[in-house]
Formats: sequence, C-alpha cells, structure tokens
Amino acid sequence: MKIILVGASGTLGQAVASELGQRHEIVRVGRSSGDLRVDITDSASIRALFEQVGPFDALVSAAGKVHFGPLAEMGEAEYAVGLRDKLMGQVNLVLIGSHYANDGASFTLTTGILSEEPIRQGSSATMVNAAVEGFVRSAAIELPRGQRINAVSPNVLVESMEGYGPFFRGFKPVPAADAALGFARSVEGAETGRVYKVW
Amino acid sequence: MKIILVGASGTLGQAVASELGQRHEIVRVGRSSGDLRVDITDSASIRALFEQVGPFDALVSAAGKVHFGPLAEMGEAEYAVGLRDKLMGQVNLVLIGSHYANDGASFTLTTGILSEEPIRQGSSATMVNAAVEGFVRSAAIELPRGQRINAVSPNVLVESMEGYGPFFRGFKPVPAADAALGFARSVEGAETGRVYKVW
Repeated sequence: MKIILVGASGTLGQAVASELGQRHEIVRVGRSSGDLRVDITDSASIRALFEQVGPFDALVSAAGKVHFGPLAEMGEAEYAVGLRDKLMGQVNLVLIGSHYANDGASFTLTTGILSEEPIRQGSSATMVNAAVEGFVRSAAIELPRGQRINAVSPNVLVESMEGYGPFFRGFKPVPAADAALGFARSVEGAETGRVYKVW
Repeated sequence: MKIILVGASGTLGQAVASELGQRHEIVRVGRSSGDLRVDITDSASIRALFEQVGPFDALVSAAGKVHFGPLAEMGEAEYAVGLRDKLMGQVNLVLIGSHYANDGASFTLTTGILSEEPIRQGSSATMVNAAVEGFVRSAAIELPRGQRINAVSPNVLVESMEGYGPFFRGFKPVPAADAALGFARSVEGAETGRVYKVW
C-alpha cells in the first residue's frame, strides 16, 4: 500500500512509520520536515500535498495541536487553536483527500484518551478529540467508493511523560509502538467508523 | 431558582419553560424574541445579556444551529456554522456566564442523538454534538464555586418530525415534554459532567 503519513516526525508518527513501514510504502509528511510538507490549517496546502502525492491507499494523520490551559483562562482564541488544527485540519485531510484516494482507501485520524477521561487544563483537548471521533462516526457512513475512516485514541505516551507527566498523574502511559498498532488495525483491517482505544 | 433559558421560543425551549416554569422564575431569552435577546455567536452580546440579568442559579441553553448537508458537499464554511453557533455559542454561554452565576449554579447545554447515532447529511451535527459533550465532561472538573454542567441529548422530537422525518427514518421520536425532563434532572438534580440521553 501507498500510505501518506502526516505528522511523521512526531513521537507517534515515528512509531507508526516503524510499524507500517515494514510492509508498505510510506510518504512522510510534516509541517517542517519529511518527504513532503503540509500546513493542515490551510486547505490550499492540503490540496497541494495530494496533487504531489497522487493516488494513495491510506492516509494516517498523527498531527494536530490543541491549547492546554485552565478553564478560567480559556476563551475563543484558545479553543480556536484546536478547532482549526487538530479538528478541522484532520477533517480537511479527509474531505480533500477523499477525492484523490483510491477506491477502498482508508483514513485514520488521531484523538486521545482525554476524549473520555478529562484532566485539568484539558478542556480543549477533550472537546476536540470528541469532535474528531464524532466526525469519524458520521463520515464513515457517507464516504464514497468503499473508503473507510477510523480514529486511534492513545493514552499518554511513555515517550511523552517527561513533558506531560504532571498533567497525567495516575494514567498508565503506553509505548508509542503500542499506539502504532492501533493504526495498523485501522489501515490493514476492514472496519470503518471505529475508535481504536490504546488504553 | 432564577433560570436563564436561551432558545426559549423553540420547540424544545417552550417545553423546558413549561416544565421548569412550574417551580422557578424563567428569564426567556432568544435571538429575536423573549424577555431578552442574545446572539450566542457574539461574545459581547452574551456579556450584555448577563449584565442585564444579574446573578442567576441556572442557565439552560436550548439553542444552537448546525448545517446539514451531504459529506461530499461539506467544507470549512459549512462546518464553521455549527462550530461557531451550537458549539462555541454554548461554550461561551458557560465561560462568560460562570463569572455571573451564583455559587452552585448549573449550566445545561443541548446536544442530540446524532452525537452517537449518525445519519446521512448529519456529519456536522454529530461532530458538534460530540464536541459539546466533550466540553461538558471536561468543564465539569474545572468550574469554580461548586458550579455544575450537564448536557441533554434528545432524540428527534415528535414536534419536529414534519420537517426532519425524512432524515430520521427508523428513529422513534420523543415528545418535547419528555426531553424537557432531562433539563429538570440537570437543573434540579446534583450531578455534574453528565449527558442525559432522552432516547
């Protein structure tokens, strides 16, 4: 399979590349590194990416920023970061990518445990992850030509605990390599509309 | 209790007013009718509303628009309708209202069955309803002064079937009066972070 991997240089992206790269051709895409570049907040940039890549069999997004902050300090601007980047960035990869993708191609987006398990300062992450999962459930029944869509919802990653540990006390982190298995289930499996929880 | 009811003139809002108005003081708020007016997509308008009302014990939002359309015809502009109105409109009612609300006050937002049960042309509704429910789960653990937040997720309403029926084949509609009970559970109960499903 020819697999576009957006967010290839991140901790999760690298693990996905290791897992899927054993069996498939990976096109590594990043904001500032990789085989190709994309700014997922910019539809024109997304379109240019697909024009360069041509037809593909799977797109994996391991990308998406949200703003973390205490609820009392969150306002429209802070929520807009995640809505524009992790939510609509990933949604636009699907909406635009669907036109370029082969019949039966799959899209796999990234959410996270905060969707169901909130933490302090995480209201935007919970909102956005839940929204992405909603999009996945609904897009699954309308995508054309047998195309599929799923999400992977990892726990906090072992590799990220140095930075995120204080926010995730009591959470049992998972290795990025385990989270990558969720992407393999989505890409190499046959289901659609699923959220694969790695926690 | 003094209860602010946003969206008071809608089918759901009227039923909530009937239910809660038997026992409480209701301030009816609407976009173009009611005791007071608000445009929930405009933070200044929301702030002006709370300045006029003063301290309150509960806010119920039965408001929020989303765009319905086939996935293939949905783009950023179409999703932006729901993100700005039903999602961030309701979120801003909470973020801003929290400063004006009494200790222990409750906020109750409206989502809907599409959050979990997608239909054709409903991808924005599913995304936005899920996002609102995520916000409710996360805001519940950070709201100050014992304030609470819940959502009510109604099925399609009996009263709306003439317009929405073709989209909801096979769904068993619920009377708006039943959906209103969910709001009573939230406002007059003691829980927080819940989604009351009326389906």
